[in-house]
Amino acid sequence: MTIEAGSTAEGAGRRIRLGMVGGGEGAFIGAVHRIAARLDDHYELLAGALSSTLEKALRSAQALGLARAYPDYRTMAREEAALGADGIEAVAIVTPNDQHAPAAEAFLEAGIHVICDKPVTTTLAQAQRLRELARSKGLVLAVTYNYSGYPMVRHARQLVREGALGTLRVVQVEYAQDWLTEALESSGQKQAAWRTDPARAGAGGCIGDIGTHAYQLAAFVSGLQTESLCAEVSAFVAGRALDDNVQVMLRFAGGARGMLWASQVAPGNENGLRLRVYGDKGGLEWRQEHPNQLHWSPFGQPTQIISRGTGAAKPDAARVTRLPSGHPEGYLEGFATVYAEIAQALRAARDGSAIAPDVVFPTIEDGVHGMAFIEAAVRSSSQGGQWVEVAG
Amino acid sequence: MTIEAGSTAEGAGRRIRLGMVGGGEGAFIGAVHRIAARLDDHYELLAGALSSTLEKALRSAQALGLARAYPDYRTMAREEAALGADGIEAVAIVTPNDQHAPAAEAFLEAGIHVICDKPVTTTLAQAQRLRELARSKGLVLAVTYNYSGYPMVRHARQLVREGALGTLRVVQVEYAQDWLTEALESSGQKQAAWRTDPARAGAGGCIGDIGTHAYQLAAFVSGLQTESLCAEVSAFVAGRALDDNVQVMLRFAGGARGMLWASQVAPGNENGLRLRVYGDKGGLEWRQEHPNQLHWSPFGQPTQIISRGTGAAKPDAARVTRLPSGHPEGYLEGFATVYAEIAQALRAARDGSAIAPDVVFPTIEDGVHGMAFIEAAVRSSSQGGQWVEVAG
Amino acid sequence: MTIEAGSTAEGAGRRIRLGMVGGGEGAFIGAVHRIAARLDDHYELLAGALSSTLEKALRSAQALGLARAYPDYRTMAREEAALGADGIEAVAIVTPNDQHAPAAEAFLEAGIHVICDKPVTTTLAQAQRLRELARSKGLVLAVTYNYSGYPMVRHARQLVREGALGTLRVVQVEYAQDWLTEALESSGQKQAAWRTDPARAGAGGCIGDIGTHAYQLAAFVSGLQTESLCAEVSAFVAGRALDDNVQVMLRFAGGARGMLWASQVAPGNENGLRLRVYGDKGGLEWRQEHPNQLHWSPFGQPTQIISRGTGAAKPDAARVTRLPSGHPEGYLEGFATVYAEIAQALRAARDGSAIAPDVVFPTIEDGVHGMAFIEAAVRSSSQGGQWVEVAG
Amino acid sequence: MTIEAGSTAEGAGRRIRLGMVGGGEGAFIGAVHRIAARLDDHYELLAGALSSTLEKALRSAQALGLARAYPDYRTMAREEAALGADGIEAVAIVTPNDQHAPAAEAFLEAGIHVICDKPVTTTLAQAQRLRELARSKGLVLAVTYNYSGYPMVRHARQLVREGALGTLRVVQVEYAQDWLTEALESSGQKQAAWRTDPARAGAGGCIGDIGTHAYQLAAFVSGLQTESLCAEVSAFVAGRALDDNVQVMLRFAGGARGMLWASQVAPGNENGLRLRVYGDKGGLEWRQEHPNQLHWSPFGQPTQIISRGTGAAKPDAARVTRLPSGHPEGYLEGFATVYAEIAQALRAARDGSAIAPDVVFPTIEDGVHGMAFIEAAVRSSSQGGQWVEVAG
Repeated sequence: MTIEAGSTAEGAGRRIRLGMVGGGEGAFIGAVHRIAARLDDHYELLAGALSSTLEKALRSAQALGLARAYPDYRTMAREEAALGADGIEAVAIVTPNDQHAPAAEAFLEAGIHVICDKPVTTTLAQAQRLRELARSKGLVLAVTYNYSGYPMVRHARQLVREGALGTLRVVQVEYAQDWLTEALESSGQKQAAWRTDPARAGAGGCIGDIGTHAYQLAAFVSGLQTESLCAEVSAFVAGRALDDNVQVMLRFAGGARGMLWASQVAPGNENGLRLRVYGDKGGLEWRQEHPNQLHWSPFGQPTQIISRGTGAAKPDAARVTRLPSGHPEGYLEGFATVYAEIAQALRAARDGSAIAPDVVFPTIEDGVHGMAFIEAAVRSSSQGGQWVEVAG
Repeated sequence: MTIEAGSTAEGAGRRIRLGMVGGGEGAFIGAVHRIAARLDDHYELLAGALSSTLEKALRSAQALGLARAYPDYRTMAREEAALGADGIEAVAIVTPNDQHAPAAEAFLEAGIHVICDKPVTTTLAQAQRLRELARSKGLVLAVTYNYSGYPMVRHARQLVREGALGTLRVVQVEYAQDWLTEALESSGQKQAAWRTDPARAGAGGCIGDIGTHAYQLAAFVSGLQTESLCAEVSAFVAGRALDDNVQVMLRFAGGARGMLWASQVAPGNENGLRLRVYGDKGGLEWRQEHPNQLHWSPFGQPTQIISRGTGAAKPDAARVTRLPSGHPEGYLEGFATVYAEIAQALRAARDGSAIAPDVVFPTIEDGVHGMAFIEAAVRSSSQGGQWVEVAG
Repeated sequence: MTIEAGSTAEGAGRRIRLGMVGGGEGAFIGAVHRIAARLDDHYELLAGALSSTLEKALRSAQALGLARAYPDYRTMAREEAALGADGIEAVAIVTPNDQHAPAAEAFLEAGIHVICDKPVTTTLAQAQRLRELARSKGLVLAVTYNYSGYPMVRHARQLVREGALGTLRVVQVEYAQDWLTEALESSGQKQAAWRTDPARAGAGGCIGDIGTHAYQLAAFVSGLQTESLCAEVSAFVAGRALDDNVQVMLRFAGGARGMLWASQVAPGNENGLRLRVYGDKGGLEWRQEHPNQLHWSPFGQPTQIISRGTGAAKPDAARVTRLPSGHPEGYLEGFATVYAEIAQALRAARDGSAIAPDVVFPTIEDGVHGMAFIEAAVRSSSQGGQWVEVAG
Repeated sequence: MTIEAGSTAEGAGRRIRLGMVGGGEGAFIGAVHRIAARLDDHYELLAGALSSTLEKALRSAQALGLARAYPDYRTMAREEAALGADGIEAVAIVTPNDQHAPAAEAFLEAGIHVICDKPVTTTLAQAQRLRELARSKGLVLAVTYNYSGYPMVRHARQLVREGALGTLRVVQVEYAQDWLTEALESSGQKQAAWRTDPARAGAGGCIGDIGTHAYQLAAFVSGLQTESLCAEVSAFVAGRALDDNVQVMLRFAGGARGMLWASQVAPGNENGLRLRVYGDKGGLEWRQEHPNQLHWSPFGQPTQIISRGTGAAKPDAARVTRLPSGHPEGYLEGFATVYAEIAQALRAARDGSAIAPDVVFPTIEDGVHGMAFIEAAVRSSSQGGQWVEVAG
C-alpha cells in the first residue's frame, strides 16, 4: 500500500516562512489554514496579525507560539519586508472579505507572496486590480478554493480533459447548507454576523461564501467558460441584508448548459457541495461530503465507483494522495494539497526550482472569475432575472 | 407485521369492467397499466383496441385473453357504449400522446370514464377542452402521474400539509435519464421514435415525457402554484426535433423559489426522479429509485430515515402500503395505488359509494397544469429564456 | 425501453386453477401469495380453506370472491380432487409452519400440486417424507423461498456459475430484523405469537423464519454445499421459547468458509437480508432492501453498480425483469417471478409443454436443505457450539 | 461554525520532543504517524532510527530534516537518554511487528515513553512483559489502535455507556480488505512481504494486521469483555504462511454474543471496518470508510443519521472534532486525535498537568487484549474450531 510521492510528499528541503493575517481566537478558517500549512511540513508559521483587537492579536500569537506578533497587517507587511531573508516569504490572509483586498495589496506592495481566502475581494474591480498588482510584482497570489485540492476532483478534471466524457452538454452543481435557516446573525454568532453584513462580506452572502466555491469547482473540472447567466438571488430570512439562497442558470461557451444552486437555508444539508458533469460519452458525479469516491458512468456501461488510492484513480489524483484506498482523506487533506502546491510555486520563486506540470492551485484568476460571477448574478437578479453577460 | 387495509386492500366487491386503447405488442407502458389494474384485483380487462395495426390489435387481444377486440378506439367506444351494463365502465388510454385527446374525447362522449397516460394531450388547449368535456359529462378523467402513488410521496405531502416544514422556501426537483444520449430514434427503437417526433409527442420531448412528471410531483407534494418560469429547452443530439434536456427556474405564489431539471442525455442516470423541499422548519428529500425511504430533517435535529411500513410513516402513506417495512415496494405498486384509488371513484360513480378523503389520484387538473408547464417552458425558451407567466 | 418477454411475460394461455390454505383475515403472507399469483396473470384463485375458524374462512373467501370455500384442507383436497378438470390444479399453503406438512400431504395424496411457504415443515423427517411423496406422485412441490426470484439474485447466480468470481472462498450472509426486540408475542400480535411458539413454528424461531431464507439464498447464488456448521442459537427476550438471534459458521465442500447471522432483535434493521460472495477473481454484494442493484467487484478493478434492466444485467436476470432500469421492482415482483416459474412447470405437467432451462424456482429440495440447516444449528448450539455435520 | 476547543486544539505550550523507530523510505505507516503528530502541533520530531539499513536510515532522516539520526534503536535509546532534557521524551515505534517488543523495551528501560503501532508484539507473553515494564517504570506505553480516535466512534462509545442501547445483546464487527487476494508477497511488495511472514508479523497475518483493530474497536465501543471464542483461521492464497481470512464467534461476559470477520481476500473491499452494536433499547452502526456519520436506531423510532460536528454529536465526539459538520474528517484526523491525547498524558508526566477525563487513547492494556485475542483464535482454529477461553 505504498503511495507514490507527489506534490503532497512530506516537506522536502527548507520550509516556507509564513505569516498570517486574521485567524485569531474564535475564528474557524484560520485554524484550517494552519493545519493545511503544517500537514505536509512545507511551512513554518512565524508571524501574525491575528486579530483587529490588539490584545487578542497578541494573546493568539502567543498561544500559537509565533515568533513575531503585530497589531495590524500594515505594520506587519512593512516590518517583515524589512527583515529581508529572515522575514516571511508569504502571508495567508484569512480575515472577513472586506479586509482581503487592502491586506493583500499591502503585502504584494511589500514584495511578499499572498495566499488569500475566498471570495478574494468584495468587488470585481478590486479583484482585477489585485491581479494587475500581482502580475506587475511577479508574485504568487493564490486563492484558496480548497475543494479543487481533493484527489477525486483532480480525477474528474483529468477525465474531462482526456475527452472521456466527450463533448460536454450539461453541468449541474449545487452547494447546500442549513446553518442560516434561522437568523443566527442576531444571536451574535461571529461567523454568521460578518457573512450576512454587506459591509464586511461584500455584495454576496450565500453566493459569495459558497456559491463561488460551486462555480469555481464546476469551471475547474469542466474547463467550461460561462458566457451568460440568469439568477434568482433571495434572502428568505426576515431582516437579512444579504442573500441566503441563489439559483442560477448558466450558458457556457460552446453550447453546454448548466444550473447552479447554493443555499444556506436548506435544512438537512451540512456542506452539500455536489458536482455532476455530462457529455455525449459519459457522465460523472462527485460529492464533497464523501469525497473519496467518484461515480463514473461511461455511456452504455455500468456506473463505476472510482475510489481514491486505487489503481483506477488517475495520475492527477494519485499525485495528491497520501493514503491507501479505504483510509478516508477529508477536507483538511484537500486544503493541505492546495498549500503543498503553493509551496512548490513559492520554492520556485525562491530558488528557481521547477514546478510540476500538474500543479494547479487556484489563483487570482479564479478569484477574478468568482467576483465576476457574483457581480453578474446580483445584476441579473436585480433586473428581474434577465440574462446577463459574465465579465471575462 | 399485519398491514392495515386502505385504498390498496384487495378488490372489495365487483370488479370494474375495463378497456384499453394502445398497449399492444412491443409497447412498454400498456403492460404496466395492466399489471397496475390487476395487482389489487379491482379491475377486469375485457376489451381493447390495442394497436393501430389491425392484425396486431387482434393478436395482442388474443394473447391477453380479452373478450372483445376492436380495430380502433372509435368503434370500441361506440360498441362498448351500446353494450350497456355489459360494456366497459372505463378505458385506459396508453397510446402515443397525439392519440390521447381524440381517444379520450370519443370515450367521454360515449359516457365511459377515462384513465389517460401523461402528458394528457399535445396542446394546452386540448387539455382544457377535455377538462370541460369531463366536467360536463360528470365522468372521471384520471391522468396517470403515477409517482404520486408512492407511499413516501404521500408521507411527504402530508408533512408539508401539516406544516412540519413551516413556510416553504425552496423546491428542487429533477428527473434525469440517459437513454437518449445517442440518436436512438434513428435505430428504429419504437419508444424513442415517437417520443422524439413532434407530430406524435407534441411540443415537448423530454419536458413532456419526464419534465411534467417532475413538475407534477413537486406540485403534488409542496402544494405550491407556479406563477412564472424561465426555461432553457435544449436538443443536444444532432438532428433531434424535440428537446432532450430542460432547465427551468420557477417562481411560486407566496415567494418560494424552485429549480427543475429534466434530461434524457445524462449518462449514468436511469430514472432519476428526485424531489427536495425546504421550509423554515425542516427539509425533506425523496428519490424515486429508492422509493421506500424518505429523508426528513427537522431543522436543528438529525436527519431521520423515514421508512415505508414503519410506525413513523404517516397515515396517508400507511393507507397505500401493502407490505411491512424492509420488503420493498416499487414502481408497479405505486402505479397500482393510482389505479386502486381510481377504482374507488369509479365505484362511487357506479353505486354512489363513498370515496375515502385521502383518495388523491391525479386527474385532468394535473393534466392541464402539465400542459401549461410545457407551453410556458417552450415559450420562455423560444424568447431567449425570458420569464413568462404560467397559465392557471 | 421495451423489455424482452421471459418467464414473467403476462399470462400466456389458460390460467392455472389455484386454491389456497390459510391466508384469511389478519394474515400477512396470504395476500402476498395472491398478489404474486395475480401479477403476471398466470393463475385464477378459485377455492380456499382460508382459516381454521369456519366463520372466518367463509367470510374471507367471500371477500376475495372465491368460487368455493372449505372449512378445512382435508375436505378441500378431497372435494377439489373429485371435481376433476374443474377442480384446482395446485394449492398454495400459507398457514403457520405446523400445518404445512399435513396439508401438503393431503393435497399431494389427492393428486394436486403444492406451493408451500417456508420453512416447509417443522422437522427434517417430515420434509424428507414430503419429498418422497411428491417424487412418487410425480407432482410439483414448490417452496416459496421468494428471494431467489429477484433479478439481481439471478444475475449473481449466473456470475458465479460462469466463473466470474473464480474459486469461491468466503460467503457472508445475514438477515437482520428488529420487530421482536421486545416481547411482541405477549401483546397478542398474531404474527409474533405463532412464530415464537414451538408447537406451531417448529424447533426454529428466528432461524426458521428468516435464517433459512439466508441459508437458501447463499446456496442458491453460490452453489456451495454446507458440510458442517457451528451455531450459537439465542433467545434474548425473557420468556421467549424460541430463538431470536442465531450466529453460524459454515464449512462448505471444497474449502470455502462462511458466516450466517440472523436476528429479529437488532434495532434499526427492517428486513436486512444481505449476501456477499468472494472468490479469487472477484466479489459481489446484494442487499434485499435495495434489490435492483448489485455491486460487482472484479479483483483489481473498480466496483461496478450493475442495475436491473440495463444492458449489463445478465440473461438470467433479464428474463425475469418486467420494467426498465430505474423503475424499481420490489418484493412482490420477485415473489411473482417464483409463481410465474411454477406456472411453467404446472403447464408442462398439464400439457407437456416445455420448461425454459432457466426456470429455477425453489422446491422441496430447498425445503429439505432448510430443515437440515435448522436441525444442525439447533443441535450444535445445544452441544455448546460444537461443529456438527449437516444432513444431505 | 466555531468548534469548541478540546483535546485536539492546536498545540498549547511547549511541544513534545519525539523520536521515531522505523518509518523510513518506502514505509507507509511512518508517514501517517508523523502527520498525526504534526497535525495539531503537539510534537516536534527530532530523532530517528528510521531504517535497519544504515544508509537508508541516514538518507530518510535527512529528507525529513531530523536533528539526530541513529543506525539502530539501541544506540538511539542510549544516546537520547544521555541527552537528558534535550533528548526525546517519547518515541514512536513503527517497524514490522517483530521489532516492537525489543525496541519498546529498550526505550522504556531508558526512561523514554513509547507510542507503539499494533499489534504491540508478536506473542502474548511479550505484551504482558511490556505491560509490567511500563508499569514499573511509570511510563506511558500507548498502542495506536487509531480507529478509536474517530469522533463518531467516541459518540458510539458514549451512547453505550449512557445506556442508550440498554442491555447489549449482539455485536457484529468486520474488517474486510482485498489487497492480498493474490500472492502480492511474491512480487516483492514490502508491506505484503512482512505482513505474511510469521518471523516478522507473528502468529497472526490478517488477524494481527486488521482483526485486532476490529476486536479493539468492538471492545472500545461496547465495553464488553470476551470470555471465549471459536475461530476459523484460513489462508486461502496458495503458499501463504499466515492467515488471510478469519471468522470468529464471540461470547461476552454478561451474555452478549458477537461475530467478527476479518479478511484481506475479499475483492471490492478496501478498508471495510464496520461495527454494529445492538441492545434491548437501540442499535448503532458505524463504518470507517464514511466515518463522519453514525446510524443510531432507538427501538421503535426512525433511524437517525448522527453527523460529526452537529449539535446531535455527543460531548465525547465534540471534544475531538476539528471541523464543522459536512467538512469531512478522515483517517489522519482520527490518528492525530490519538496523538493529541497521548500528548496530554506526556505533558502530565512532564509537568504534572491534568489529563482531561475523556482522554481514552489506547494503551498496552489494549495491546495485551489484542495479543490474547490472536493467541486464542489461532489456538481455537488449530483445535478444529473448538471454543476456547480468552486470557484476561
